[in-house]
Amino acid sequence: MARPKTISWQDNSLLLLDQRKLPLQVEYKRCENVDDVAEAIRSLLVRGAPAIGAAAAYGMVLAALNSNEETIREDLSRAGEKLAGTRPTAVNLFWAIEKMMTAAAEVQGYAAIYQRLLEEAHSILEQDVISNRAMGKLGAQLLPPKARVLTICNAGALATADWGTALGVIRSAGRDVKVYACETRPVLQGARLTAWELLEDGFDVTLICDSMAGTVMAQGMVDAVIAGADRIAANGDTANKIGTYSLAVLAKAHKIPFYIAAPTSTIDEKIASGEEIIIEERAADEVTHIGGQRIAPSGVKVYNPAFDVTPANLISAIITEQGVFRFPYQGKLSK
Amino acid sequence: MARPKTISWQDNSLLLLDQRKLPLQVEYKRCENVDDVAEAIRSLLVRGAPAIGAAAAYGMVLAALNSNEETIREDLSRAGEKLAGTRPTAVNLFWAIEKMMTAAAEVQGYAAIYQRLLEEAHSILEQDVISNRAMGKLGAQLLPPKARVLTICNAGALATADWGTALGVIRSAGRDVKVYACETRPVLQGARLTAWELLEDGFDVTLICDSMAGTVMAQGMVDAVIAGADRIAANGDTANKIGTYSLAVLAKAHKIPFYIAAPTSTIDEKIASGEEIIIEERAADEVTHIGGQRIAPSGVKVYNPAFDVTPANLISAIITEQGVFRFPYQGKLSK
Repeated sequence: MARPKTISWQDNSLLLLDQRKLPLQVEYKRCENVDDVAEAIRSLLVRGAPAIGAAAAYGMVLAALNSNEETIREDLSRAGEKLAGTRPTAVNLFWAIEKMMTAAAEVQGYAAIYQRLLEEAHSILEQDVISNRAMGKLGAQLLPPKARVLTICNAGALATADWGTALGVIRSAGRDVKVYACETRPVLQGARLTAWELLEDGFDVTLICDSMAGTVMAQGMVDAVIAGADRIAANGDTANKIGTYSLAVLAKAHKIPFYIAAPTSTIDEKIASGEEIIIEERAADEVTHIGGQRIAPSGVKVYNPAFDVTPANLISAIITEQGVFRFPYQGKLSK
Repeated sequence: MARPKTISWQDNSLLLLDQRKLPLQVEYKRCENVDDVAEAIRSLLVRGAPAIGAAAAYGMVLAALNSNEETIREDLSRAGEKLAGTRPTAVNLFWAIEKMMTAAAEVQGYAAIYQRLLEEAHSILEQDVISNRAMGKLGAQLLPPKARVLTICNAGALATADWGTALGVIRSAGRDVKVYACETRPVLQGARLTAWELLEDGFDVTLICDSMAGTVMAQGMVDAVIAGADRIAANGDTANKIGTYSLAVLAKAHKIPFYIAAPTSTIDEKIASGEEIIIEERAADEVTHIGGQRIAPSGVKVYNPAFDVTPANLISAIITEQGVFRFPYQGKLSK
């Protein structure tokens, strides 16, 4: 693939593709310490549940790199807390930090800890691509030939180590798939990222505003909706980008299958249902400004939840690297 | 009202509030001939079904003003065609042109025709405010005390001569109403116009992205949805701003009443159902650019319908100046 790498480890630092600047500029940010990584996650320089998990893993590696024999345990613990405090909804973040803490606990001595952490981060990144390929193959079997697929946000190569989750299914199905990309206000990940990476890959992609999804479905132009996920509760309730829930309701009203594609690292077995998922509320200026330019009157109140929760009964299937699961999900989503 | 006038006749010209520049600038465009008015309608300088009807009426007055005894009939006919060619969906445009042509046909001689057209345009403008006040009073009775109302686009003072249709109902209900304004991509009439005019009037208004409507409803934060209309078929099917249909589907799924507020001039008795309504598709750059700034990759396909059609069975009631009608609408919407 000629795709620019979302995440890579180079010369003892973490190189992140700056997703705030796409599609106008392809720029990289070199992160040299855990603060750089935390800020990159917080500011959406890197986003997408699997990608922020992998970035956080390398954040822990950087914390170790900048530490020493005396303070390594303490520094890792602080780094884990710092990274965990960046964004609350995507569980992959906490999953990756926990995996890194467990790995560090397995060995003794600064050099061994650093080596073990680097291996673990590499493994998380590599495993993500393997998962996405497996998920893609399984998900592609659910689509009819020449499928017309509607998606939201960016659950693509840019949201993961590579290939993507929802867009991974589309990639695995092949270039006969026609994609409707919802622009995904307020941060426009659909317009900026999904449209860009699918165009680069030669897909037939049509950009629509989020409000157009209903009419596109009503006109019989959509065979399936596929979205990614930020956290899946034990009962299958799924948090994903704001607007996903509306798409699920609309898909049901139009008898169109609605799929979630996500690695099992997105499943949070500790919570019974979506009610327990913390939904991040982001700053008002994401809505009132676009590209630094004000579009709404000064002083207006804004409600800006970054995610919503789609109840399990609206999800036709959850596509993971370990299999495709269908409602009811209770008991099936255990890793 | 201290509200800036959307449409007024001053010194033999039509003064239009430039709605493309709101809320950042309050500027007026002086239209001195029918071409100015046609361009104002086409470019969305003036928008909203009742407002473009009234603007077109004054466009006909300007055509007469710039004409003479010899060519007045011909000039009016050409002006009517020019104005009718600006935008296809809102029926108020065609209704107003037809009213003006009928008025002109009633009298003879240049001076009498001009005078009659001016009176007719003034009457259309004044009648619109009277209609909106009547509609507002009737619609307000449908709302619970301290209602939380979700709306889309701008069906307010800015979309009409004054007071508004959907926002007229809210104004008539009073400032206890809490409003959720959908920003209404791509042209952002909700963020730019509805939020502005309601804030100016002292309402509690919260701006949301269109994709957030579903989650706001699911959280029990909405008592009613009220939208305006661009054309209502004889069976009650209603064309309105893109995204309205999705709101109607979502409202039904959440058992929230969904109302259309529109004057009877928006009813098109000539068409049996929404299938016959021509939906305007607008330029791709409305979606790919915001404020002149590119937000999507160059070369991406765009689908940009400006309106959608909400089937009558999803509309709890149609609020007009002549009464509140409930489904089934067949036979009830005759003027």
